[in-house]
Amino acid sequence: MAIDLVAGSVAERVPGEEKLANSSLHVGADGEIHALYRKIHLFDVEVDGTVYRESDHERAGDRPVVARLGDGTIAGMSICYDLRFPELYRELTLAGARILLVPAAFTVATTRDHWEVLLRARAIENQCFVIAANQIGEHAPGLRSGGRSMIVDPWGVVLAQAADVPGVITADLDLAGQEALRRRLPVLAARRPDAYVPPEGT
Amino acid sequence: MAIDLVAGSVAERVPGEEKLANSSLHVGADGEIHALYRKIHLFDVEVDGTVYRESDHERAGDRPVVARLGDGTIAGMSICYDLRFPELYRELTLAGARILLVPAAFTVATTRDHWEVLLRARAIENQCFVIAANQIGEHAPGLRSGGRSMIVDPWGVVLAQAADVPGVITADLDLAGQEALRRRLPVLAARRPDAYVPPEGT
Repeated sequence: MAIDLVAGSVAERVPGEEKLANSSLHVGADGEIHALYRKIHLFDVEVDGTVYRESDHERAGDRPVVARLGDGTIAGMSICYDLRFPELYRELTLAGARILLVPAAFTVATTRDHWEVLLRARAIENQCFVIAANQIGEHAPGLRSGGRSMIVDPWGVVLAQAADVPGVITADLDLAGQEALRRRLPVLAARRPDAYVPPEGT
Repeated sequence: MAIDLVAGSVAERVPGEEKLANSSLHVGADGEIHALYRKIHLFDVEVDGTVYRESDHERAGDRPVVARLGDGTIAGMSICYDLRFPELYRELTLAGARILLVPAAFTVATTRDHWEVLLRARAIENQCFVIAANQIGEHAPGLRSGGRSMIVDPWGVVLAQAADVPGVITADLDLAGQEALRRRLPVLAARRPDAYVPPEGT
């Protein structure tokens, strides 16, 4: 069986550079790497009393990347903290993405409060499927992730969600239904790039 | 008592134009109109079998608008369908908005499936309060809105929500808490406008 594998995120050593990249890979049915995405947004924050400084040891990526799957479907790649930046998912969607991929190690607190709502919003506003794998348990000494991996459809419905143990989830993606939704509710065509400018009154 | 009133949306006759604008107004404590926002995104869609063609009778606004409230707080203005476009709320937030305003007449179906998740996502990704008044019941012959007006805090918590009847909701907005959140989790500073470009692989 020929499959596409998008695996991430992994610590990538970039030739000639000291810092590692946080990267996601698309491996095609031929076993070759077809796409490599490096996380753009670095997690330099404090959550629930824990300080994260990814920029100390990680180098950021510089541009979005899509994976072209074996059947021609375009999937937009992203990683973890990227989820808070709708700008990235718009670029992926405008480039033809039908699926948005979000491997992550969200903290327990942000998994509880932000994970589902941001995944569903990205699905709804871009009318894309979202496939989001979140680590569960301790992923580095003292750092815990919240799990709840999920697959969301373009209307925002959670098609599948992991229980609170390591596991696998699957769902069938109705790409024809997605096309019909995009025809009925053509959000992308209603965008107004000319109007996304600094506001009056400032 | 001196208050700021932001009221909308209203059908505005624009001098010299045939089509009406869908507008929201900020009236200051002096009783004068301080800001006028005209909805940017026109609702030309089909939802639940009903066809909407706002562009037939409505003229779109051309730029974002913020209201500067009496205490100096900046509130970003938006209306209804705008909620599906994160680009607009980013512009408002980058201009200093601490509060995002969303008067709306969301359909019953989209209120059920999209209203809360999109409001909470706008709050979380922009770390803003969101004050969203949605009509309930029949707002035009044959057209029903879904209500569930809500006030959301910058962490995405729903502070207040209307019951399924006409009513009023209120909440205290902890602006100091918002500032502390923005220091701990500086999402806006982590944006990468240089990287919001067409992806590799397309």
